[in-house]
Amino acid sequence: MDMEKAKVIFQPSGRRGEIRKGMSVIEASRELGVDIETLCGEKKVCGKCKVRIEEGFFEKFGIQSSREHVSPWQEEEEKFINEAQKKEGYRLGCCARIEGDLLIFVPEESRAGKQVVSKAARDIHIEHDPAVRLYHVEMPPPSFEEPTGDFERLCEALEKEHGLKELSIDFLVLRDLPNTLRKGNWEVTVSVWMDREIIRVRPGKVDHCYGIAIDIGTTTVAGYFCDLVTMEVLDTQSLMNPQCKYGEDVMSRITYHMMNPGGLQKMSDDIVAGLNSIIQEAIKSTHPPKKKAKKNGEDEGGEEWIEVPEEGKEYLRLGVDDIEDVTIVCNTAMHHILLQLDPEHVGLAPFPPVIHHGLDIKARDMGLNINKGSYIHVLPNEAGFVGADNVGVLIAEEPYKSDEIQLIIDIGTNGELVLGNKDKLISSSCATGPALEGAQLAFGMRAAPGAIERIKIDPETHEVDYKVIGRDAWRSYSKPEEMKTKGICGSGILDVLAELYRAGVILKSGRFNPDQKSKRFRRNPDNNQPEFVIAWAEETSIGKDIVMTQKDVRQIQLAKGALYCGCKLMMRRMGIEKVDRVKIAGAFGTHVDREKALIMGLFPDCDVEKIISVGNAAGDGARAALLNRKKRDEANWVSRNVEYIELTVEPDFQDQFAQAMQIPHMKDPFPHLKGLVPEEILNQK
Amino acid sequence: MDMEKAKVIFQPSGRRGEIRKGMSVIEASRELGVDIETLCGEKKVCGKCKVRIEEGFFEKFGIQSSREHVSPWQEEEEKFINEAQKKEGYRLGCCARIEGDLLIFVPEESRAGKQVVSKAARDIHIEHDPAVRLYHVEMPPPSFEEPTGDFERLCEALEKEHGLKELSIDFLVLRDLPNTLRKGNWEVTVSVWMDREIIRVRPGKVDHCYGIAIDIGTTTVAGYFCDLVTMEVLDTQSLMNPQCKYGEDVMSRITYHMMNPGGLQKMSDDIVAGLNSIIQEAIKSTHPPKKKAKKNGEDEGGEEWIEVPEEGKEYLRLGVDDIEDVTIVCNTAMHHILLQLDPEHVGLAPFPPVIHHGLDIKARDMGLNINKGSYIHVLPNEAGFVGADNVGVLIAEEPYKSDEIQLIIDIGTNGELVLGNKDKLISSSCATGPALEGAQLAFGMRAAPGAIERIKIDPETHEVDYKVIGRDAWRSYSKPEEMKTKGICGSGILDVLAELYRAGVILKSGRFNPDQKSKRFRRNPDNNQPEFVIAWAEETSIGKDIVMTQKDVRQIQLAKGALYCGCKLMMRRMGIEKVDRVKIAGAFGTHVDREKALIMGLFPDCDVEKIISVGNAAGDGARAALLNRKKRDEANWVSRNVEYIELTVEPDFQDQFAQAMQIPHMKDPFPHLKGLVPEEILNQK
Repeated sequence: MDMEKAKVIFQPSGRRGEIRKGMSVIEASRELGVDIETLCGEKKVCGKCKVRIEEGFFEKFGIQSSREHVSPWQEEEEKFINEAQKKEGYRLGCCARIEGDLLIFVPEESRAGKQVVSKAARDIHIEHDPAVRLYHVEMPPPSFEEPTGDFERLCEALEKEHGLKELSIDFLVLRDLPNTLRKGNWEVTVSVWMDREIIRVRPGKVDHCYGIAIDIGTTTVAGYFCDLVTMEVLDTQSLMNPQCKYGEDVMSRITYHMMNPGGLQKMSDDIVAGLNSIIQEAIKSTHPPKKKAKKNGEDEGGEEWIEVPEEGKEYLRLGVDDIEDVTIVCNTAMHHILLQLDPEHVGLAPFPPVIHHGLDIKARDMGLNINKGSYIHVLPNEAGFVGADNVGVLIAEEPYKSDEIQLIIDIGTNGELVLGNKDKLISSSCATGPALEGAQLAFGMRAAPGAIERIKIDPETHEVDYKVIGRDAWRSYSKPEEMKTKGICGSGILDVLAELYRAGVILKSGRFNPDQKSKRFRRNPDNNQPEFVIAWAEETSIGKDIVMTQKDVRQIQLAKGALYCGCKLMMRRMGIEKVDRVKIAGAFGTHVDREKALIMGLFPDCDVEKIISVGNAAGDGARAALLNRKKRDEANWVSRNVEYIELTVEPDFQDQFAQAMQIPHMKDPFPHLKGLVPEEILNQK
Repeated sequence: MDMEKAKVIFQPSGRRGEIRKGMSVIEASRELGVDIETLCGEKKVCGKCKVRIEEGFFEKFGIQSSREHVSPWQEEEEKFINEAQKKEGYRLGCCARIEGDLLIFVPEESRAGKQVVSKAARDIHIEHDPAVRLYHVEMPPPSFEEPTGDFERLCEALEKEHGLKELSIDFLVLRDLPNTLRKGNWEVTVSVWMDREIIRVRPGKVDHCYGIAIDIGTTTVAGYFCDLVTMEVLDTQSLMNPQCKYGEDVMSRITYHMMNPGGLQKMSDDIVAGLNSIIQEAIKSTHPPKKKAKKNGEDEGGEEWIEVPEEGKEYLRLGVDDIEDVTIVCNTAMHHILLQLDPEHVGLAPFPPVIHHGLDIKARDMGLNINKGSYIHVLPNEAGFVGADNVGVLIAEEPYKSDEIQLIIDIGTNGELVLGNKDKLISSSCATGPALEGAQLAFGMRAAPGAIERIKIDPETHEVDYKVIGRDAWRSYSKPEEMKTKGICGSGILDVLAELYRAGVILKSGRFNPDQKSKRFRRNPDNNQPEFVIAWAEETSIGKDIVMTQKDVRQIQLAKGALYCGCKLMMRRMGIEKVDRVKIAGAFGTHVDREKALIMGLFPDCDVEKIISVGNAAGDGARAALLNRKKRDEANWVSRNVEYIELTVEPDFQDQFAQAMQIPHMKDPFPHLKGLVPEEILNQK
């Protein structure tokens, strides 16, 4: 065996391979395709990547694993791994470097689970005017009297029958032209992009044509597979952003790029591979499912995959060539990483992006596997922290056509705000951080099975009832061991905090109420910090109590403070006291309990009925741009006509922020909160 | 050793390798990089690819070579290999297939020599207006007040300082933008293509920018390396078209494509590699030459390449990135093969090309190694047999701006004709075949060292004097063994025929004069056909007499007949009796003796002074389009406004052709031929 390499096996996945010595456990996990949580992007500060180094000779794999085979203990690990765990062989994956053969156990809490994504396409009105259109033509074959070339012959027919002028043709499509024309006996269907360029030619008369609108979030990627002729959404595909392994948020990915030569391309390659898999899955959805079966009439028992069509269902049976247009929205950092544009400056004041304009890029230049002549349209960015995804929200919601003053909040890993109406629009971003999505908390996690998504705390007994993703029954109707709780996800976060406040567990300032007598309230034996137990160890699959710590509460307060303060400063800039409508975009908007959001002071006062969730409006915008080319012009226009405001430079930003962190944020609670929260809590200093 | 493979060594080159059994000798020669003449594209009809199979055990290579190791003798070989040669082991490389280890000798006559190319750029007037222009700009860095993105910041500066509007930027160039702007401290030089797209950004102020104009001939490729700012031609590079190994003429390459799956891409890859090597050589010409030298101060004698600059000479030291524009002209078949457009239909009546229009193709899509954002401009085609090279001739010569009626003749491997003036232009092609370039004759060859290029025959004694390429002294001033003659090249062909006629060796009909008593005139012992010895075996490097056969004379007559008949039919179409000016383009025009061309009746009567050679006008046209973008529009215009005439469909084509084959073609000789040709010859029936 190569002396410079070591055999490494990850359990429980069983993935194994030879790894160059000196690599960290996290780097090795990436190489072998094992997903380990690394929220901080290997900066040794999140402690999420705990693994256990097993000792002994493992006959099955023929290796001797030993704690001596990893690099020495580092100071940073002390914070996250206590003495007992240390004795068991726990290490942080980002700190421990491989120096010999290893069997590494990844505990459940460190595993990055499969996200449950809910980004269904909404039924918004879109006028049919796609960038890619089909034109059917017939033409006479060449003769000695008229020996004109194939392309010019086609163009003459297209001009005569459809009035299309001065068309060009993609170079690779031109290569197929002579044989396609003859195969179709001089009758073809032409796909024309923007009435400008021929991007596909098919023999005979064809009447279908497809595209995909893609929303690349920092955490999740969603693809809406659309019929460009009927506008129908045929399928919705989603997956975790494969870049999550480089860091959970935008800044940690920018840092990964800055610290790792080749890191930008690596992250870009990963997301491109992700988009290609979305495209593949969309294509697959047009074929019957397959199952493995014995080969027909053969005794020797060979197996093959056979199609199992659903009865009465017709299948389109498309191929990647049938995807003729793609639109993409994403935040500015994801945009830059996808296109391999240096994202470093987006992360540094004054945060200029490399480009605002929408881009039309040949799919082949990006490595996307669709019809070879097609373009990818990437929507424009507003600013360094308000990207094409927000532009997508705008062209879907069209506040610039409204009389009402709208406040549009898009909370993903970053918070993006737009305020205004047809007279004026301003935008801003606020550093909510990923706390509202469940990250950065002791037991925060993504919206995956086992995550707490709803919670109730009895104000009298402080007993906790909750519901986890993947199980319909609440805790109170289940046996403890049935819950298999792992942590708290985004949609549960506000619930938890609002319930903790409503039950009097925490005070207006966010501090734990020191006077409570709940058996769930305690001080952590390791660091003497107060914490509140949400779920007991016996209800979890991770073998320990799931708690909310004082630090967790502070994280959420920071997030909600940033958001509220952002909204308020924008309203001040606009010179308004009240907004007519609040629209909450993103998965957060779908899950959030509007009343609890008001209790928490997530955004300024507004009638509860005027607060609406607009779902994945960014994705809707991408779809609008896919199905209507004028939306692309509108996007370019709006991206340059929304005034971006950098809030952190406002002189009283700090004061405003501090004030906004209070729960609730106002001196007097909303009238409709009366009765919801005990008087003595509301009146606390 | 693999039983399916055989060791093959080619001599005298010494190239060797393992070849899959069943391959022909020609296929093996390609795989091992040995150049063997294959004029007919392996259709077994040209007999140029004779090789000798050596017998015996060759210790040096450890192989036993035997005639038993090739496939059996084929009927087609009889025509070219006589009994004596057969006994020596001669075979045709296209017929003999490898079945075991072989040592194959390639006789000198079968070797494809390095062409001597004379395609210097002429000094024609071109107005300076290149497609790629440099713009220098400075701009303020981003601030909180003005955090606009990099691309928009650059565009604002370009609009303000240079009036450029609505620019786009190449996707790959955009990737460099943020760092280039910062490296240049917000001062950069931008290369803009067609005032439309940014294709390169360099930090600071730069004032140079280069391009290459390329003329791809069926046989030779020439590249003119130009300074786009000063318009100077810095270097001229040329090479054999690497596709020659697939067949000498256009039709045999089209056939190669039709008979070989993947053949089109193979030929395309070869010419693209050829263009890349032209680009590399052009770049190399801007660096000092290198020589191998002992490493400085080292006793152990390591060697390294060191630069040896010429004293006082400054070197530009450019890289491939500095080539920012390329224009290409070529005939329609070369155009289609280069771009991998199916050329099959160009070879079939009514010969429609895949496209007429000029094309702008990203260099990366074609695999050309220049500045990554740059385009390749391929000029438009007129028709299936009148390609972009003829368009190049037209925009260089501009007959459409002239009052004079011009006849422009471009004789390469195919003959292309244009006739007309500012009122009307018509074009045509005539199947001259490659005879006028020396191919298809018993001892025809390309213009390489050892080729006869000038000839004189004494009318009294019939003694022959001649000059070969690579030796200044004529035969009469040399010892026989100094001549090392190999064959007759294009520029010698008309000389030979005119001299044979002038000396009374052949008659007006082209038949050999049966009454002559010359010792050079004889009947070939093998086939009893008459032939005339041009050079005796002792003067050659191929060990046998170089002769003109009756068949050779017929080939040349066919070529000149096709050309003359073409010209005449075009004049009839135009309704004119006489042309004001004859322009002869191509290497042929440079070498041809105008008087002898008239004697031979190559083209219609014209004052000798009005016959001019315009050199490589096609290449000049490519250069004009490189240095002046309006020439590209002009090219598109003229390509669609020259009326292409298919001559072979004229009702009396056959009669006209037969008549035009006569030498001279008219009933009465030109007045100026009196005295040049003996009366009794001119008056012969």
